[in-house]
Amino acid sequence: MTGVVTCGDINGIGPEVAVKAINKLTGLSLVNYKLLIPRNVYEVVSDSTGIDLRKKQRVEIIDIGEYPLEVGKPTKESGSAAFSALEKAFKLVQSEPESFLVTAPISKYAFRLAGINFPGHTELLASWSATRDFVMMFLSENLKCGLATIHTPLNEVSKLLTSDSLKRTIETILHSLKADFGIGNPKIAVLGLNPHAGENGLIGDEETKTIIPVLEQYSSRCFGPFPADAFFARKLYQQFNLFLAMYHDQGLIPFKLMTAGSGVNFTAGLKIVRTSPDHGTAYDIAGEGKADFSSMLEAIDWGYRIATNRRFFYAG
Amino acid sequence: MTGVVTCGDINGIGPEVAVKAINKLTGLSLVNYKLLIPRNVYEVVSDSTGIDLRKKQRVEIIDIGEYPLEVGKPTKESGSAAFSALEKAFKLVQSEPESFLVTAPISKYAFRLAGINFPGHTELLASWSATRDFVMMFLSENLKCGLATIHTPLNEVSKLLTSDSLKRTIETILHSLKADFGIGNPKIAVLGLNPHAGENGLIGDEETKTIIPVLEQYSSRCFGPFPADAFFARKLYQQFNLFLAMYHDQGLIPFKLMTAGSGVNFTAGLKIVRTSPDHGTAYDIAGEGKADFSSMLEAIDWGYRIATNRRFFYAG
Repeated sequence: MTGVVTCGDINGIGPEVAVKAINKLTGLSLVNYKLLIPRNVYEVVSDSTGIDLRKKQRVEIIDIGEYPLEVGKPTKESGSAAFSALEKAFKLVQSEPESFLVTAPISKYAFRLAGINFPGHTELLASWSATRDFVMMFLSENLKCGLATIHTPLNEVSKLLTSDSLKRTIETILHSLKADFGIGNPKIAVLGLNPHAGENGLIGDEETKTIIPVLEQYSSRCFGPFPADAFFARKLYQQFNLFLAMYHDQGLIPFKLMTAGSGVNFTAGLKIVRTSPDHGTAYDIAGEGKADFSSMLEAIDWGYRIATNRRFFYAG
Repeated sequence: MTGVVTCGDINGIGPEVAVKAINKLTGLSLVNYKLLIPRNVYEVVSDSTGIDLRKKQRVEIIDIGEYPLEVGKPTKESGSAAFSALEKAFKLVQSEPESFLVTAPISKYAFRLAGINFPGHTELLASWSATRDFVMMFLSENLKCGLATIHTPLNEVSKLLTSDSLKRTIETILHSLKADFGIGNPKIAVLGLNPHAGENGLIGDEETKTIIPVLEQYSSRCFGPFPADAFFARKLYQQFNLFLAMYHDQGLIPFKLMTAGSGVNFTAGLKIVRTSPDHGTAYDIAGEGKADFSSMLEAIDWGYRIATNRRFFYAG
């Protein structure tokens, strides 16, 4: 099994958490790690952390060139470096059977400065994979979340939420719960879009017009739509394998509150396995050597587990 | 001091939690309680709970007539009863100095069946008070939340969020934190509307066009806009007296998760003091005698504290 890891935005905490996490994990399993990172960035992080991965077994540092560092801010060059690492990593994972990709955080703003017009990893990887059927998912041991829309202005969420898009999201999630997580009989909870899940159509009609008719087609697998605030207040998430939020903050506010920084981002629906930590570049603490790498550790661990589950699923 | 309490929707848990909470509190302070409730509903609850408030000192049961009970569902009559109790209670509180109103939960759907077209207590009380400057607020000892928009379809939130409406919301909150909560130097955190608070205008422009320019006018009092998921993940709420959410679920998902059912709803900006528990009618457990009345207790306690704070504020 091979874990391919990117450095992310070089001016953020990505390189630091990637190096620290690989250092901690190597030797604990038979995974081979490949870290894609500019040589000058690797030298700086290796010096400041006192970790030299080149001396470790089962680790390969793949040099992607040299890029100017300006620690703590998004730049055109930090965007370019993150993009280059990702592009090479994607090709590696595609060509290597039994591999998984773990991506350190990028800055969407630096991407834009570098002329790359994608709001994030998820959308970019889906585009390279030529699939519309992908879902941003968040993982922890006891709580899993899927997003029906991702980096969408709140004002456009309703428009994007069609019967067709919701059905495709549900299909992708159900397949992923089986193939990637080994759950034979998955049950998912679907949150309402509007306050009080629309309260019988009194506060918005997306529930009555779109969500409820779709859920009726998956009545043994999908439940809801639940009023989002009551769903969490009453801990109903404990009864399901995953909850599906209609938009970014509706899923990530409760997920991050309940997982306290240990959550992992996963892109369901791709041919490759791709995970990442659920935090950002954290420019404000970059270069200080104090970044918490627990989410990166979890991301690598989940990448390994998902790739393993898939192997059994498709072999069986 | 007088605490005026309504029964709420008679087919829900409102009458039960109101009776239980008053029973627990009476005698503990010099507050006089007035409970507005249909006589037949009072008899049923009194029988089933074994509590007779008529025998208690400092408690008055105000009969609002007789309404047919259909425990567990919203009806035209349950909507009418809830409305009648509220209307009479509002007049009582208006006419009585040093009083506060505590409202048990209603059903917006039953209101609609009874021909009352208001989405909730908050909007109705604001209308009777002839004010636009009201804010739905949620209270607990260590966490307070304000909502910039309330029972609005998600799709209309952006349209309602203008510079003018946001300024009025902030003014109302700042005044309330001083007058109602005795906070001399209030600081509030404002959440972004879009994912990642718009990420510098890349995901929606409400932050750059509306929110940031308003916050600049309150730079010593208001901070943000914060990306909502990171705000909670990083526990930044601990640094502020209140966080202002742009819409219902953005505020109530984290508030209810963190307060675990003990939160209280408060309408800031009214001349009267009005609180309520932050749960709904809970039709599914109505009439079973097992409703948790801790949020109702808290609502009465906060009503008392706010009314007391106001007395000092306006006297000083």
